[in-house]
Amino acid sequence: MPEPATKVSLTGIKPTGEPHLGNLIGAIRPALTLAEEYDSIYFIADYHALTTERDPAAFRHYTRSVAATWVTAGLDPNRTVFYRQSDVPEIFELTWAMSCVTGKGLMNRAHAYKAARDRNIDAGEDPDFGINMGLFNYPVLMAVDILIMEADVVPVGRDQAQHVEYAADIAGSFNHLYGDSYRFKIPEAVIPEEDSAHTVPGIDGRKMSKSYDNTIPLFLPENKLKKLVRRIPTDSTPVEEPKDPNSSTVFQILEHFATPDVIADTRKRLEAGGVGWGELKNQLFEVLNAEIAPLRERYNELMEPGSDLDTYLAEGAEKARERAGKVLRSVRKAVGIS
Amino acid sequence: MPEPATKVSLTGIKPTGEPHLGNLIGAIRPALTLAEEYDSIYFIADYHALTTERDPAAFRHYTRSVAATWVTAGLDPNRTVFYRQSDVPEIFELTWAMSCVTGKGLMNRAHAYKAARDRNIDAGEDPDFGINMGLFNYPVLMAVDILIMEADVVPVGRDQAQHVEYAADIAGSFNHLYGDSYRFKIPEAVIPEEDSAHTVPGIDGRKMSKSYDNTIPLFLPENKLKKLVRRIPTDSTPVEEPKDPNSSTVFQILEHFATPDVIADTRKRLEAGGVGWGELKNQLFEVLNAEIAPLRERYNELMEPGSDLDTYLAEGAEKARERAGKVLRSVRKAVGIS
Repeated sequence: MPEPATKVSLTGIKPTGEPHLGNLIGAIRPALTLAEEYDSIYFIADYHALTTERDPAAFRHYTRSVAATWVTAGLDPNRTVFYRQSDVPEIFELTWAMSCVTGKGLMNRAHAYKAARDRNIDAGEDPDFGINMGLFNYPVLMAVDILIMEADVVPVGRDQAQHVEYAADIAGSFNHLYGDSYRFKIPEAVIPEEDSAHTVPGIDGRKMSKSYDNTIPLFLPENKLKKLVRRIPTDSTPVEEPKDPNSSTVFQILEHFATPDVIADTRKRLEAGGVGWGELKNQLFEVLNAEIAPLRERYNELMEPGSDLDTYLAEGAEKARERAGKVLRSVRKAVGIS
Repeated sequence: MPEPATKVSLTGIKPTGEPHLGNLIGAIRPALTLAEEYDSIYFIADYHALTTERDPAAFRHYTRSVAATWVTAGLDPNRTVFYRQSDVPEIFELTWAMSCVTGKGLMNRAHAYKAARDRNIDAGEDPDFGINMGLFNYPVLMAVDILIMEADVVPVGRDQAQHVEYAADIAGSFNHLYGDSYRFKIPEAVIPEEDSAHTVPGIDGRKMSKSYDNTIPLFLPENKLKKLVRRIPTDSTPVEEPKDPNSSTVFQILEHFATPDVIADTRKRLEAGGVGWGELKNQLFEVLNAEIAPLRERYNELMEPGSDLDTYLAEGAEKARERAGKVLRSVRKAVGIS
């Protein structure tokens, strides 16, 4: 149980693809620092991914992969609560209960739904063409993810802040109707500043992102990592001429992983001329591989069936169900179900 | 487990008020005859009622009352599966999973939602004014109620047939996407003929219905039942004159509960003249009370905390969860959750 003075943070992780370097720097490591300040809860939002994921084998792999990645990156299952959403059935029962106090108008205005609707309208389709009820209900499930863990703060990107506002709204509706018997804690979004320190460029120079297909997957085997780094586009400046580090994607990626001394030295050598892009790419590969090699080994261990990961997730599910069960029982009593 | 040759029927019971004589004749007794032909499943749809019920004490009472009523009326918990929806958490997890294969367009066209929407539009309100997500999602939960029990047939009123069609549609969507791994059974609606034998008039002569506020509650204490029967309106034909049994609400109610001999004799006496309405009302009270008195006693026993009803519901929940768990596990495997 948390000390009364320590606030609870909740981080949801949607398993929709292979984790890449941009995730590690931009999302995973910043989220792991929460454990220093908060009682931190992390969960794999697998049932959220079911709104779009139709390939069972890929889905199963992504879920395990993302869980293994976070543990590999430093998530300590003993200091935190770490679980798969689908291991906590209380979440889905509470989702039904909370849907009964959630206005449909709120869902009509949810960003993800509205965007899908607008795309349909622009394409001359029926506004709800291809939209499933999972997508439409998504904000209720998200609200329950937050409320059932009694989270105080939810670190989210600016585009996800609406979900936390909705959780607060839905909690408010419940508290208004049933607050004499049980009151939900009202959660707050914490929106980290977007800064270059957390934005790794992809191999095409744009922000690294699955949707740009420009990622460096985290746990590539060594030879594949080397090949991928070699494929990063460079300009045709000859070896001997001075180069602008700031316009080089290879250098910009290096900046996120090398030590300050190495970065400063490399910058100087590029600006002086005499260093070719091939040499710089070799350097980037070495730096990345030095960072990734030990992680890769741990990740591969965790991915094996019956590994520590299964123990962590089973223990995490138990802790999560204890928290969730307490809240669900209070809600059932408040509404008159039991 | 059912024999392979016996079909499974499912009957849902929404706890939204005191059971009355019209329920007994029009719904409960016909539904109980299903157990002769089918492996019969009956459940109290308490979480459905949460879409509208905001009074926890009344809600708790209605849920228990309706369960006690069905057992009192002859539901045999040992020959059937009988449970409260809220005791089967598998239903709510499956509801989320199935919402991900349910088109939003289907819900837009659901009768109950459309009716609420039309009322808002007629009143000049926002179309979704006061509509909660429980109401909007209702057909998905209803579909899962049916599908998770692998019901073959669902006896419903004509106005409820859409729910069974939706269950079939949603099952079809799932089977289309994941049918190689698991296929839902496609349920069928069974719509009983509306006939006068099952339509009891209320004390105002219209069909007995909670919405007309004209009911004779099933388990009124004897003195209250007597008073209520005395309040049934009659015309002012003097005692000695002949009377038309077919235009008398008192006689029409009597027809549902007296033996054929008594009915024929009473009809003759009314038509002959010399029988007053007061006498007929006394006769109706005696007939009703003879029918209800033993039921009332059993009902009152079952309503006590810790009665047989709790045992029945606990055993029913166990049977229901076994069935539901089997289906849920298959679905989880098919979609890639576990």
